[in-house]
Amino acid sequence: MQVKIIKIGGKLVEDDAVLNALTERLTAFHPGCVLVHGGGSMAGRLSTALGLEIRMHQGRRITDSSTLEVAVMVYAGLANKKIVAGLQARGADACGLSGCDMGLVVSHKREAGEIDWGFVGDVDTVRTEALALLLENRILPVISPITCSKEGQLLNTNADSVAGAVAIALSSLYETELTFCFDKPGVLLDVNDEQSIIPRIDKHDYRELLARGVLHSGMLPKLENAFKTLEAGVGSVRLTNPENLNGGTVLSL
Amino acid sequence: MQVKIIKIGGKLVEDDAVLNALTERLTAFHPGCVLVHGGGSMAGRLSTALGLEIRMHQGRRITDSSTLEVAVMVYAGLANKKIVAGLQARGADACGLSGCDMGLVVSHKREAGEIDWGFVGDVDTVRTEALALLLENRILPVISPITCSKEGQLLNTNADSVAGAVAIALSSLYETELTFCFDKPGVLLDVNDEQSIIPRIDKHDYRELLARGVLHSGMLPKLENAFKTLEAGVGSVRLTNPENLNGGTVLSL
Repeated sequence: MQVKIIKIGGKLVEDDAVLNALTERLTAFHPGCVLVHGGGSMAGRLSTALGLEIRMHQGRRITDSSTLEVAVMVYAGLANKKIVAGLQARGADACGLSGCDMGLVVSHKREAGEIDWGFVGDVDTVRTEALALLLENRILPVISPITCSKEGQLLNTNADSVAGAVAIALSSLYETELTFCFDKPGVLLDVNDEQSIIPRIDKHDYRELLARGVLHSGMLPKLENAFKTLEAGVGSVRLTNPENLNGGTVLSL
Repeated sequence: MQVKIIKIGGKLVEDDAVLNALTERLTAFHPGCVLVHGGGSMAGRLSTALGLEIRMHQGRRITDSSTLEVAVMVYAGLANKKIVAGLQARGADACGLSGCDMGLVVSHKREAGEIDWGFVGDVDTVRTEALALLLENRILPVISPITCSKEGQLLNTNADSVAGAVAIALSSLYETELTFCFDKPGVLLDVNDEQSIIPRIDKHDYRELLARGVLHSGMLPKLENAFKTLEAGVGSVRLTNPENLNGGTVLSL
């Protein structure tokens, strides 16, 4: 079985029409698909509505205990169940999960250094056999990035990292492709020309593109991260927008 | 395998010390246990904090779309994941689910009659084989009463009803006991004497107790409902408090 691990941004969940169109497209990949989602700006809006002080450092949010509760409610609750309900209504047998469920993604609280990020988790292990049990039973896991430490502390975890760790883990059992949906149609030769998608980049091409200096700086961390995932065993990584899940740029070694 | 279906009130989740003690006790029933929980007053508090108007009719809440979102966030999100994290930390392989996940509990929106209850669901079907898949793999399902209609509408559903429907469904495969945790140590002969627990009540005893008029009126709907569940195939129904999960009153036909 080939398994596609698809990371979608949380903001896709905020508009019912967008969510309906997305769940419709996602059913095409079932069975043999795992979704990982974020919570977009819903968490920020809920924090604001609750009058919580939003503490940021270098553009990134600090997760205190109230912010963690909001993240759990929005990611593991509202966003997760809206996606599941949309998929179920379209005949895809989705099961919403967070990292804490069945010990799917065990993490540890990031150590406070110069800055204390609060209840933020970094991934330690993925329980591959629990995901395999669902996939072999034609169930579509929909995973929110709320994880849990061995001690039972819920932790807010980066959804891209969760998707990467899940894809690497599943590569021990299946042929895998990891898709990151973002706001561009792929890796572009010219950032101002959405038609200039580079369809395939291997490691050799990547070095050449880097040497030529044509890649937009905003893409570099994504590409760096994607090649690390490939080195760890994932078959291919696709960067595309949610409208074109079979298109975009495919990265491989 | 004997399966215990245990319904716990949501307010047990609100205090970390209470939750820790409860999850510790619950591990004794794993494997072979399904938990169903409510969300207690957390949902009401969140609604109030968000300035939502709480509309009630005859002491029961009307679930408009904002109230539904709050219920999904609190029940399927925060309450569910706190219970799961507590169980996982104690070695019980819990998996948090809502009725929408794997189509576990399919419901329909209650028709508006004299009063429109809003996004409230009544249970149609339980997908027994999905629960069996988890139980056979030594996974402890922790179910929040957020269900989904065939059309993909999330619905707020009574947790006692969900627990009853799950217990009836599992009775086709397993010997079952359904435990309702509430604030009394069992059915009492004298409502003012917590020592006056009636340990066992069968249908014959029940008729006799009714005829003698000794049962507290507040217990009658619970008992009525319990005997309906027994008639539908559940092996026994236990009414007890969360401190004494092996005690209380056991009802049978």
